[in-house]
Amino acid sequence: MDVIKNRKMIKLEDAVVNILKFARTGEGERINLDSALYRVLAEDVFSDMDMPPFNKSAMDGFACRIDDIDRELEIIETIPAGKNPQNIIGPGQCAKIMTGAPVPKGADCVIMIEDAEVTDGKIKIPHQPDKSNICYLGEDITKGDLVLQKGTQLMPQHISMMAATGQIKPMVYQQPLISVMVSGDEIVEPHIKPENSKIRNSSGYQLLSQLIWSGCKVDYKGIVPDRMDELEHTIKFSFEESRILIITGGASKGDYDLVPDVMHQLGFRTHFKEVAIQPGKPFNFSTRKNLVCFGLSGNPVSSFVQFEILVRPYLQSILGMNISHSQLKIPMGEKFSRKKAEREYFFPVGISEDSLAIPLEFHGSAHMNALTKADGIASMPIGKTQLEKGELVHVRPL
Amino acid sequence: MDVIKNRKMIKLEDAVVNILKFARTGEGERINLDSALYRVLAEDVFSDMDMPPFNKSAMDGFACRIDDIDRELEIIETIPAGKNPQNIIGPGQCAKIMTGAPVPKGADCVIMIEDAEVTDGKIKIPHQPDKSNICYLGEDITKGDLVLQKGTQLMPQHISMMAATGQIKPMVYQQPLISVMVSGDEIVEPHIKPENSKIRNSSGYQLLSQLIWSGCKVDYKGIVPDRMDELEHTIKFSFEESRILIITGGASKGDYDLVPDVMHQLGFRTHFKEVAIQPGKPFNFSTRKNLVCFGLSGNPVSSFVQFEILVRPYLQSILGMNISHSQLKIPMGEKFSRKKAEREYFFPVGISEDSLAIPLEFHGSAHMNALTKADGIASMPIGKTQLEKGELVHVRPL
Repeated sequence: MDVIKNRKMIKLEDAVVNILKFARTGEGERINLDSALYRVLAEDVFSDMDMPPFNKSAMDGFACRIDDIDRELEIIETIPAGKNPQNIIGPGQCAKIMTGAPVPKGADCVIMIEDAEVTDGKIKIPHQPDKSNICYLGEDITKGDLVLQKGTQLMPQHISMMAATGQIKPMVYQQPLISVMVSGDEIVEPHIKPENSKIRNSSGYQLLSQLIWSGCKVDYKGIVPDRMDELEHTIKFSFEESRILIITGGASKGDYDLVPDVMHQLGFRTHFKEVAIQPGKPFNFSTRKNLVCFGLSGNPVSSFVQFEILVRPYLQSILGMNISHSQLKIPMGEKFSRKKAEREYFFPVGISEDSLAIPLEFHGSAHMNALTKADGIASMPIGKTQLEKGELVHVRPL
Repeated sequence: MDVIKNRKMIKLEDAVVNILKFARTGEGERINLDSALYRVLAEDVFSDMDMPPFNKSAMDGFACRIDDIDRELEIIETIPAGKNPQNIIGPGQCAKIMTGAPVPKGADCVIMIEDAEVTDGKIKIPHQPDKSNICYLGEDITKGDLVLQKGTQLMPQHISMMAATGQIKPMVYQQPLISVMVSGDEIVEPHIKPENSKIRNSSGYQLLSQLIWSGCKVDYKGIVPDRMDELEHTIKFSFEESRILIITGGASKGDYDLVPDVMHQLGFRTHFKEVAIQPGKPFNFSTRKNLVCFGLSGNPVSSFVQFEILVRPYLQSILGMNISHSQLKIPMGEKFSRKKAEREYFFPVGISEDSLAIPLEFHGSAHMNALTKADGIASMPIGKTQLEKGELVHVRPL
C-alpha cells in the first residue's frame, strides 16, 4: 500500500539559511592581475600611496597665482606630464602645464588653455576662472586607505584600482570545482534526436553554464539512468574529485526518483526535499560531513530558478563574495494575478524601456521559451494572488 | 603665437552614429556548444521538434479519464519517464505515471499522487482536480519555430535551448582582436612604485578588462612615451595584427598630446576630437579605410565612461549583438544639481534596496575610488542642471 507522506515544504528564506550553514569559504591563492577579472578578493586592499600623488593639473593650461590673473604673465617654463617643475612661480609669472603634470610651487590655479590669450611668451586672462583646476595631493585617496574590500568581485573598475595601487599579485579565493550529474531514463544528449518518450538534456548544459557564469569550475558526469547501482556509483565517484555535487532530475516523488533514496543509502542526511516556490518545489538538499549535494528539478525553468535562488547564494558564500542585493524593485507595467498563493511565485518578465516589469506568456516549469525571452525573473510572495499595475515588484535581471 | 582653436565638440548621439558607420560585423564560425557561453549567435535557430514532443505528464500521479474521477479506478500499469505506455486507458482504469512520462491514450488528466488514495491496486480521488496536469504536444514550441534570434548573446538559458534543439555546433560571430596602447611619459606599469611626477597605468588594465568583459580578444602593446617616432612605430605595428586600436592618454590638447598628430601623419582621418560629455570630453575617433582608432582619455573614470558609451556600442555591432537598452530608468533617491550644463553629465551612483539612485561623492575624471563603489552610472542631459528627488534618471548598472 502506498502511503501519502506528510509533506514538509519549507519556506525559501529558511531553505537558504539552512543551506548557507554548510557553506565554507574556500582558500585564497595569489594570481596575476591580468587574469584576475571576475575573481573575488580574499584580502582587503590598501593604497600604497596618496592619489593624486602630487598637486596635479586637471587641465592643459597655465599654472599661476590666483592674485595675478588680472596681470599679463610671463611664461617661465613648460611642464609636461611626467616631469617635475624646475621653477617656483613668482608674481607676474606662469608656467605652461599639461594635464597630469605636477603644479609648480607658488602657483595656486591653472588657467585652461582655451581661456588664455598667448602672445610672445606672455599670457593674458580675459575672464575670471571659476575653479582652480588642480587635483590636490591625496584628495581622492590617502596612503593607507582601504580601497577595496575583501569579498569584492573584481570588475574592470576594480582592476584599475588594483593596478593603481600596485597590486600585481592579488590574493583571490580559489574557484570551487562542482560536479554535475543528470538523472533520468528519458534523457538523451543533445546530439541525439530524441524518439518516442525521450527528451534532450537541456537542464544539464544550462546548469554547467550557470556554474561557469557564477565563477566555478565544472566537472560534468553525464546522464545516469534511473538505477540505484548506477546512481550510487556515479555519486561516489563524483565525491572523490569534488565535495559539491549538483544533480538535475530524479528529485521528485515518482517511483523512479531515486536520488533521495541513494543519498540516504550513502549516509547523507537530507535536510529538506521541498521548498515553497513555484516553479521548483522538489529540491533535495543533503549533506554528509563536508560533502554537499543539491538535487534540482529536471525541468529547465525550475532548475534555472532553483539554481539562482537556492544554489547561487551558497556558491557566492563559498567564493567569498560580498552578497549584495541583486534584485531591482520596479513597477509592474500591467496587472498580474494567479489562483493559488501557497508558494512564492517566480515568473519571467520583460523590462520595458521605462523600466516596467511586463509579465511574459509562461506555461510553467518546462517552458524554456519564456525564459530565453525574459529580461528578468519577478517574484510574488506567499499569500499574494495579485500585483496591480504600478505596484513595485522584485525582479532579478538576467 | 598659440592660436585658440575653434572647438568642435559633438553631441554623444552624433558621435555614436558616426562611429557605428565604421562598424562591420565579423565573420561567423562554428564552435562546440560547451564553449558557446557569452558568444553571439550568427544565425537564427529553429526548433527541430515539437516541445513537449508528446503529451507529457507534469506530475507524479495517475493518468485517467476526467469523467471517471468519481469512481474507484484500477491501476493497469506504471509508466516511468522515458518509457512508452503499453495500454490505452479505458473506463474505470488509470495508469500510475511519472513526471515527464507520455500520457497514455484514453487518459485526459493526471491526478497528483498526493490527491489520490491508493489501496490494493486501486485509487479513489477525494477532491475534484483543478487542472489536467498534462503538458500537451507542441504547446511550448512547434517544430520549425524560430527559438533564438541571430544576434542573441548566449546566456545559460539560451544554452539550454540550444541543447534542447540539438544545436551542438552553433554558428557564432568571431571575437574581434583589439589592440590597446597606453600613451604618456608620466605612466609607469603597476609593478613600479611611481616617483615624483609619475603615476601607475590603471586605465590600460581597466580597458583590457572592459574589452574582455565585452567579449573581445586583446593584444596589449604597453606604454608608449610621448614621442612621434615611438607612437608612430607602435601604432603601425598594432595595425599589422588587428584593425582596431584603442589608445588611452595623449588625446587632449596639450603640447605632448601627440596622438591626433600621429594619426594625421599616418593618413588617418579624424572624425571628431571632442564629445559633449563630462567626464570624457577629449575623445579622438580616426579611421583609414577599414582601420579604426579610438583615442580615449588617460584618466580612469573618463576612459571608463568613454568606453561604455562610445566604444561598447561599436564592439556590440562588430560582435553582431542585438543592442538592447542596457539602461534602467529609476527614481533619484535625493536631489542632485550641477553648475554648468553644456555637456551630458555622467556620475556614479549607488542603487538602494528600493532601487533608488543615490549620487556618490565624485571628484571627476581621475576619481576611481568613486567608480569602484558605484552600482551604476547615471546620466543627466545637456541643458539640465538639476534632478529632483523622485525624478526618473537613466542609470547603466555596473
